[in-house]
Amino acid sequence: MKISIIGTTGYGGVELLRILHHHPVFKIQSIHSTKDEVPIWHEYPHLYQVLGKQLEKIDVEEISLNSDLVFLATPSGVSSKLAAQFLHHNIRVIDLSGDLRLKEPGEYEAWYKKTGADQSIVEEAVYGLSEWNEKQIEKARFIANPGCYATAVLLGLAPVAKEKLIVPDSIIIDGKSGTSGAGKSLSKASLFAEVNENFKIYKVNEHQHTPEIEQQLLEWDENIEPITFSTHLLPMTRGIMTTIYVKLRAQSSTEQLVDLYKEAYKGKPFVRVRPHGNYPAVKEVQGSNYCDIGLNVDERTGRLTIVSVIDNLMKGAAGQAVQNANILNRLNPATGLEMLPLYP
Amino acid sequence: MKISIIGTTGYGGVELLRILHHHPVFKIQSIHSTKDEVPIWHEYPHLYQVLGKQLEKIDVEEISLNSDLVFLATPSGVSSKLAAQFLHHNIRVIDLSGDLRLKEPGEYEAWYKKTGADQSIVEEAVYGLSEWNEKQIEKARFIANPGCYATAVLLGLAPVAKEKLIVPDSIIIDGKSGTSGAGKSLSKASLFAEVNENFKIYKVNEHQHTPEIEQQLLEWDENIEPITFSTHLLPMTRGIMTTIYVKLRAQSSTEQLVDLYKEAYKGKPFVRVRPHGNYPAVKEVQGSNYCDIGLNVDERTGRLTIVSVIDNLMKGAAGQAVQNANILNRLNPATGLEMLPLYP
Amino acid sequence: MKISIIGTTGYGGVELLRILHHHPVFKIQSIHSTKDEVPIWHEYPHLYQVLGKQLEKIDVEEISLNSDLVFLATPSGVSSKLAAQFLHHNIRVIDLSGDLRLKEPGEYEAWYKKTGADQSIVEEAVYGLSEWNEKQIEKARFIANPGCYATAVLLGLAPVAKEKLIVPDSIIIDGKSGTSGAGKSLSKASLFAEVNENFKIYKVNEHQHTPEIEQQLLEWDENIEPITFSTHLLPMTRGIMTTIYVKLRAQSSTEQLVDLYKEAYKGKPFVRVRPHGNYPAVKEVQGSNYCDIGLNVDERTGRLTIVSVIDNLMKGAAGQAVQNANILNRLNPATGLEMLPLYP
Amino acid sequence: MKISIIGTTGYGGVELLRILHHHPVFKIQSIHSTKDEVPIWHEYPHLYQVLGKQLEKIDVEEISLNSDLVFLATPSGVSSKLAAQFLHHNIRVIDLSGDLRLKEPGEYEAWYKKTGADQSIVEEAVYGLSEWNEKQIEKARFIANPGCYATAVLLGLAPVAKEKLIVPDSIIIDGKSGTSGAGKSLSKASLFAEVNENFKIYKVNEHQHTPEIEQQLLEWDENIEPITFSTHLLPMTRGIMTTIYVKLRAQSSTEQLVDLYKEAYKGKPFVRVRPHGNYPAVKEVQGSNYCDIGLNVDERTGRLTIVSVIDNLMKGAAGQAVQNANILNRLNPATGLEMLPLYP
Repeated sequence: MKISIIGTTGYGGVELLRILHHHPVFKIQSIHSTKDEVPIWHEYPHLYQVLGKQLEKIDVEEISLNSDLVFLATPSGVSSKLAAQFLHHNIRVIDLSGDLRLKEPGEYEAWYKKTGADQSIVEEAVYGLSEWNEKQIEKARFIANPGCYATAVLLGLAPVAKEKLIVPDSIIIDGKSGTSGAGKSLSKASLFAEVNENFKIYKVNEHQHTPEIEQQLLEWDENIEPITFSTHLLPMTRGIMTTIYVKLRAQSSTEQLVDLYKEAYKGKPFVRVRPHGNYPAVKEVQGSNYCDIGLNVDERTGRLTIVSVIDNLMKGAAGQAVQNANILNRLNPATGLEMLPLYP
Repeated sequence: MKISIIGTTGYGGVELLRILHHHPVFKIQSIHSTKDEVPIWHEYPHLYQVLGKQLEKIDVEEISLNSDLVFLATPSGVSSKLAAQFLHHNIRVIDLSGDLRLKEPGEYEAWYKKTGADQSIVEEAVYGLSEWNEKQIEKARFIANPGCYATAVLLGLAPVAKEKLIVPDSIIIDGKSGTSGAGKSLSKASLFAEVNENFKIYKVNEHQHTPEIEQQLLEWDENIEPITFSTHLLPMTRGIMTTIYVKLRAQSSTEQLVDLYKEAYKGKPFVRVRPHGNYPAVKEVQGSNYCDIGLNVDERTGRLTIVSVIDNLMKGAAGQAVQNANILNRLNPATGLEMLPLYP
Repeated sequence: MKISIIGTTGYGGVELLRILHHHPVFKIQSIHSTKDEVPIWHEYPHLYQVLGKQLEKIDVEEISLNSDLVFLATPSGVSSKLAAQFLHHNIRVIDLSGDLRLKEPGEYEAWYKKTGADQSIVEEAVYGLSEWNEKQIEKARFIANPGCYATAVLLGLAPVAKEKLIVPDSIIIDGKSGTSGAGKSLSKASLFAEVNENFKIYKVNEHQHTPEIEQQLLEWDENIEPITFSTHLLPMTRGIMTTIYVKLRAQSSTEQLVDLYKEAYKGKPFVRVRPHGNYPAVKEVQGSNYCDIGLNVDERTGRLTIVSVIDNLMKGAAGQAVQNANILNRLNPATGLEMLPLYP
Repeated sequence: MKISIIGTTGYGGVELLRILHHHPVFKIQSIHSTKDEVPIWHEYPHLYQVLGKQLEKIDVEEISLNSDLVFLATPSGVSSKLAAQFLHHNIRVIDLSGDLRLKEPGEYEAWYKKTGADQSIVEEAVYGLSEWNEKQIEKARFIANPGCYATAVLLGLAPVAKEKLIVPDSIIIDGKSGTSGAGKSLSKASLFAEVNENFKIYKVNEHQHTPEIEQQLLEWDENIEPITFSTHLLPMTRGIMTTIYVKLRAQSSTEQLVDLYKEAYKGKPFVRVRPHGNYPAVKEVQGSNYCDIGLNVDERTGRLTIVSVIDNLMKGAAGQAVQNANILNRLNPATGLEMLPLYP
């Protein structure tokens, strides 16, 4: 099974390399970027003498001839153009950007402030939330890999959303992410001296993962109303925590909810529901494909607090992308993804 | 004006030293701790050749004879005992612990899991939220300095609470703090290797500042219902951000709320209400006594997001304590507290 | 091949678990500590639902009956006692502490300020510097796994030391380490608030790895004189860099030295000698078993600068221990150790 | 005394603002940059409602008319051009860049790879190492403020260099700096995700402060030979440590050297020589103008280790610049510079 990666020099791309280098079935066929055609270790010296591959230009024709599957680790706005080109070749694509996720015409333009992909491609694309959309992913030609925040939020909300337990207008999501999510593009806001010993809120009520979260929630419960969702930048490199506050339609205890979640994620090795009184920390999933979830019902208010953590480059990007590639190829979803978190 | 500090070797105590060393009116008379009687620079080498003072044992009698004002930078459970002793001497006390804050009998025991102070002392103590309780602080004998989270939350909510604009059961507070708030006590959870590149939630729905926040909110609006409040540990040393979500009784625009807040904090130099579209980051107050506030009304949900940041050791502890001491002594509240944030 | 780990709850122990969990030949038979007999995930929640093993008491008899190989990830002073007990059973031991490294009587006591192991055990122990002592390691019963700093230094100096190119009294080593090297023991100096945004020197001219480095250097070049070696604490978790300054007996160019080093480490996959002008950063080996080396001859002074980086928990502890276990069992030394660095 | 600052939006410039805002004698007259003419708080929100000043274009004529003293916080290559223009007006200049430091023709070009300033300006400029060149600084028209590393190194070496105690070819300097020294210019190497949890060496044997250090050392001891000097990037924002290794001509004890240093820095409040066995950490000077020095003679090798720490933006840039401005104006050198370190 030959794999090509486009957009290899970003953090999502290099994480794909880390996973695929050891994957027992997938083989890295070629790696591409718009940068100079140099060995990848020039860009990433940690791959010196390990990965000899040369970065190549993006030639859709040639890539299609030589590969069985393409990962697009390209930025929003670029992926849609490449996806359209791959449409004409019989090749499957997993896109890590937000370009193919939003079905509703106009939503992409409204939230991303860019021109969206052709509606035909968007319609064909399957939303790759691995644990919940496995059946569609198996048959997909285009997979829209979920956003990092969206993954943490949706895995955190799925069990109560699917059971229609949520008071529809009560969802509040307080998201926090490490800086690797912002990628390697140069901006003052990403400088070490600006991020270190600092903590900031950004995209207040306007994060582009909002419509993607709502779209999936509405598939589970058509009554869900607009969510409140803000995001913060953590002074760390990898990891996302979303703290989610919801009101439940009926009174439940923490124990009951832990049971519900454990049942919902039975047989899903990457979602670990913590027992009552135990909450996941971001470091406990770093470098791994796990999504860990903790739950607490406040007896004073009846409100449910859901804590969901992932490594934004793994379950939030490259890890889930490979998980989807596994599903697409009828492999065990965990193939090549069983690395433990790096702790400490 | 002679000042004594008890509990000098904690981070709150040493921050008091930083402020008082340059205060134009207050003079550090003596510093105390339960540790060895050594020069303070043995414990804090950054004070070498600057602050020659020796740590002394805690002798309430002698301290009362020699000082005009005492700061208790001691832990919860210790302060209440010391306060009781100072009651018998005609000396004013500012307590940075949580021991004198909760008026309702049983509340302290319920949230702190310790025996509380004598009710008589608690009743006499004035809650030292400088910007809002100035009149009572001026006349106080005991000042219960507010908790760090409580300060950020209450300054963030005061204008809408006092105007009774909040839907009573809608308050959700997502708090994040640097580690200096946990002090210098040794625990595995405070080790660098456990905090660095990590982010964790703690005291889910059971933080001891909850009743203190509710007590003050109820003074402003007796309809307020129990709040949802959880706290997280940031991989940084100094600073708190609270992101607060509330529903308003009437539809308001961000601009209207910014105006309301600017009006409410007119003449209060330490509270800086940011203009629409601008949100404070924690580093923007580090090392200073500012509390910066940003506001956003989400047009999709009508919900108000309030972002409030402080330096937990300054406005959240030692800074507000000195501000209260200034008020108590009819000085300009900003005396000795005008240091700018250290940036970057 | 059944493995037992003693001292599992330290950072070295848990890193052994991360490696051995995926090792194709070694199987974790049992894990031991002096703590409570609870599932390991109670201590390390990142292992929840992954490693079901229970921590067990340290029963040398029983361990010897059930295991083929024992890793001692115990502190200095403890390992020597355990090693003596394992001597009476026919079982091989790899000790990660400093207890079995120093051959010269009195050296251990002088540098560790503790009573050393029985001389008979020390004499039998083989110093497990994998790349250079492979022949002896293959036949060892006791392996003294090298210290983290010592590994970085010795791999950095070996090619010039073995060629007797070093001016004997000219070796100066400036070491820097992340905090995980200090382990999980509680001390004020390891608190996040004390390490973060800080950088300190420690054990100035008295680090206990000094005699271990000199002992090995003298085996390579009996003229070597005492080294100058100081260590610093980096505000990060994992990684060591040693910057080594030496004078060479004969003038050489950087290119010549790069060639010498590349030749010396031919066929040694874990030592990567960087080309001229390229220097390794600590993050480029994090989470991996690599030791990366950069070289520069200053034309103005003739002095050689050697930069050597490792992950202190991998090549500096657990990684090299498993590498030695592989050698001991005549496996490819890289078996189970090929994980790439986690970047970024 | 009216002050103008050119290059206000860099980290050196904004640190000048922090100091001068509270200076009892100097008043900020105008602030300048090549950026948009907006209020400074647009660039630095931590100055919101504190410093109302507007950034202005750089008009040398007008600045000269309105100011008594100009600080150039501009990059190398820019300062030399501005200095030449200020030459024609009767106004004193303190330049924080490296442009005016190197007296030897060709040195600047060789190390900075840029065209240098006019030799006449360079010759007139006084090297502003405050503690040692006070007499010349008092009479200077142009002050070349020392480099950050150079300051730490020279204050660390001065007492032994001036006494001609150093073996001339034995000086090795291992420098480590936080990232604020690199300023706010955008580069991949300064991104948080590249610096955090990382440690790298840079400018191996080619740092541009090398000739500046040697030039001053040669003034103190004309026998000094080229130094070995390499620099490393710390994952922190503020602070420099230089660990300096030298051989002494005659055997001395640590105690004797501590005495020599204490004597040398008598009456110099910003240099704090630590007692035997005590070494400064970077955090112990953060935010302050101190340079703290620790000393150790290794009895095994006779080599002296000198540890010197500063805050690179204070004593290494803006702090020393204001100290020089104080000297120039016959004020107490410590005027406006007595802020304590921010700890923790």
